[in-house]
Amino acid sequence: MMKVRVGVDLGGTKARIGVVDEAGQLLTLGDKIYVKDFKSAAVLVKALVRDVRQIFRANTQWELAGIGIGSPGPLDKSRRRVLNTPNLKILAYFDLVEAFASHFSEPVVMNNDANVFTLGEALYGAGRGMDVVYGMTLGTGFGNGLVYRGEIFDGAHGVATEYGLAPYAEDVVEHYVSGRALERYYQDFTNQKLVGAEIFKLAEGGDELAIRAFKLLGYHLGKALIPVVRLIDPKMMIIGGSLAAGFPWIYEAAWPILKELLWDDQEDSLQLVPAKLGDAAPVIGAAALIPGKPS
Amino acid sequence: MMKVRVGVDLGGTKARIGVVDEAGQLLTLGDKIYVKDFKSAAVLVKALVRDVRQIFRANTQWELAGIGIGSPGPLDKSRRRVLNTPNLKILAYFDLVEAFASHFSEPVVMNNDANVFTLGEALYGAGRGMDVVYGMTLGTGFGNGLVYRGEIFDGAHGVATEYGLAPYAEDVVEHYVSGRALERYYQDFTNQKLVGAEIFKLAEGGDELAIRAFKLLGYHLGKALIPVVRLIDPKMMIIGGSLAAGFPWIYEAAWPILKELLWDDQEDSLQLVPAKLGDAAPVIGAAALIPGKPS
Repeated sequence: MMKVRVGVDLGGTKARIGVVDEAGQLLTLGDKIYVKDFKSAAVLVKALVRDVRQIFRANTQWELAGIGIGSPGPLDKSRRRVLNTPNLKILAYFDLVEAFASHFSEPVVMNNDANVFTLGEALYGAGRGMDVVYGMTLGTGFGNGLVYRGEIFDGAHGVATEYGLAPYAEDVVEHYVSGRALERYYQDFTNQKLVGAEIFKLAEGGDELAIRAFKLLGYHLGKALIPVVRLIDPKMMIIGGSLAAGFPWIYEAAWPILKELLWDDQEDSLQLVPAKLGDAAPVIGAAALIPGKPS
Repeated sequence: MMKVRVGVDLGGTKARIGVVDEAGQLLTLGDKIYVKDFKSAAVLVKALVRDVRQIFRANTQWELAGIGIGSPGPLDKSRRRVLNTPNLKILAYFDLVEAFASHFSEPVVMNNDANVFTLGEALYGAGRGMDVVYGMTLGTGFGNGLVYRGEIFDGAHGVATEYGLAPYAEDVVEHYVSGRALERYYQDFTNQKLVGAEIFKLAEGGDELAIRAFKLLGYHLGKALIPVVRLIDPKMMIIGGSLAAGFPWIYEAAWPILKELLWDDQEDSLQLVPAKLGDAAPVIGAAALIPGKPS
């Protein structure tokens, strides 16, 4: 028997499970299911539990060591419930950990999606071997996480790095740095309403205004990251999520702003880089939540 | 023989040593010496070493366990040298740890004054028993420190929480939150040039414009602490330094700004408070740098 972990990637739109070995290697990834197809959190959890059962029936050599869940935040301090979140209404105040734990005897742990993404990248991705790793998920919204010495830095109340909702300019950071922001920038430039993936395709094809929208997002990202660099002094800042595909343009605008800030020892050391684990990062990171990580 | 530690409080203006027992109790405090009286770092260190020797000659029951130094930052990553700092020019790039270590066989460790202040308050002062403690020294300048699980959070390059020099409004945070800022505010209101201690005395006596200067500083402190609350989610934010005497007015303006930000679990939990250890905090904190802290 081989010990494996299940990672649950719970997003505002999609959810899926994956199985990960104890060295952080993805073994299998379940199909995406759409959150909006479910009327309640209990039914959604049942569908995910069914996926887990199916995978383990098909792979009798695997022994479940535990289940890790990455979910949109903010979560309550005990890491069992999602607080009232705009992105995942059916889950608000529902005890997700209990819901999974009632089906399994193995440990079930949860943290927010951005923390879990950062944990995956810090342990097995772009931040491997580094002490202070700051991660960001750029999708519909803007999630942030900090992994310090291989563990999620949660803060005193479990809401550290909930930075997307920090006041910034005339609104909050997420209003300027997110898929929604990118779409708004592009619409301002062209009067055309496209989704992030379409804007990325245009930018890839050389469309100047699509590229400009990514750069404007990058400019605000650079500005917003100033307190991160000054307060946290990370070794690595890692950008993941669906918009990370536009990393080169984002970087081009963000990095000059941050570069100006750096002290001697940060120069040639601190980096802003794209994520390495790709699509599977949330599942790998969620699985890494389970106690008894290998070193 | 009783094991004791020496703490060295090195400031931009004054320096002194103190002796602290292994439970964080101050046993004796040396006289203040004035940094400007010394032409070089080597001569300043010699004067401090002489103070240490004198105290130990007078207290033969004490056995030195080590020397901790708190110094103005930023420091190099190895925590041996002050980088080029506006506040303490004769020390720039001088190997302070080596200078002390050449006189003693016990361990010598250094960190910056704000980190050391925060360590002292987190272990033995207002933040005792708390996991995430954010400390600030409001004196001529504005120093910041973070203590996480009883240890200084240094960042990847040793410059975490160098937040006084983070861009803010039209300048940097310290331009709006510091003794110099307070003096400027008061001068703007009255056309009178007073030092911080004088402005405090006036405020204490009920002078409306002196109080208004403290409140304006508090307003900017509140604004500047927004990223601290959002990124770090501390349990306790502690204000020390010579201007902490004006805490009630600072708090009155700062707290309403921060209170708005708090998530459910932070309300009735996160606090902004004045330091408890008073004048001796830097010495007690510096002594706490020495490995083998008692719990």
